[in-house]
Amino acid sequence: MIGRLNHVAIAVPDLDQAAALYRDTLGAKVSAPVPQPKHGVTVIFIDLGNTKIELLHPLGADSPIGAFLGRNPAGGIHHICYEVDDILAARDQLKATGARVLGDGEPKIGAHDKPVLFLHPKDFLGTLIELEQA
Amino acid sequence: MIGRLNHVAIAVPDLDQAAALYRDTLGAKVSAPVPQPKHGVTVIFIDLGNTKIELLHPLGADSPIGAFLGRNPAGGIHHICYEVDDILAARDQLKATGARVLGDGEPKIGAHDKPVLFLHPKDFLGTLIELEQA
Repeated sequence: MIGRLNHVAIAVPDLDQAAALYRDTLGAKVSAPVPQPKHGVTVIFIDLGNTKIELLHPLGADSPIGAFLGRNPAGGIHHICYEVDDILAARDQLKATGARVLGDGEPKIGAHDKPVLFLHPKDFLGTLIELEQA
Repeated sequence: MIGRLNHVAIAVPDLDQAAALYRDTLGAKVSAPVPQPKHGVTVIFIDLGNTKIELLHPLGADSPIGAFLGRNPAGGIHHICYEVDDILAARDQLKATGARVLGDGEPKIGAHDKPVLFLHPKDFLGTLIELEQA
């Protein structure tokens, strides 16, 4: 079911400092910040060649990463995203095994304008998994 | 400096259950467990096409992931590994910026028989980073 690793998302408390760290210290290819008000985050994309790192910073009062940064003030890995061919088929197959899909179980349009779902970390080895229809 | 994402390492409390989750529930390509006594872990490799997930389980009394699993009994993402062309040049460049390299700063031979180093999570957005000479 799961295909490529689309990205690893790292929540960061200071976007400029995080961008400078990846660009200047680690020498990576770092995008400009991209505000995504619908998703409550500003994102910086880091192109690693085979996959991406996404640096996430809260945007607005209701950011989905606000609580995470409250618990992890220095930042940390927030989720990993796997690609799937058919997100509804993937969801139904996962739910049939008893795995929990977050929210109302309906895919939302994610940061890459593709349907996404999140899976409950307690059912997946303590890792928050995003599925994105490739 | 950093190149491809070599792998994401997830520490897991039960290797059989974790392998079944990735193989049966998530439909991924999962290896047999590979004991690596020198590294204090047993590893399962998951081939995602563009990169790998490595499921790590403690092996022996002095496992480097024992304390992490103590803090995260359900498991969790332990580190991410970036490839570099020249690990000594990367180390020296990072140390010159004030970033901390773990241990004595000398590369060890890692799980893939290549030289590796770990960087201090407090200097890298709360993420433990492994560098591996590609």
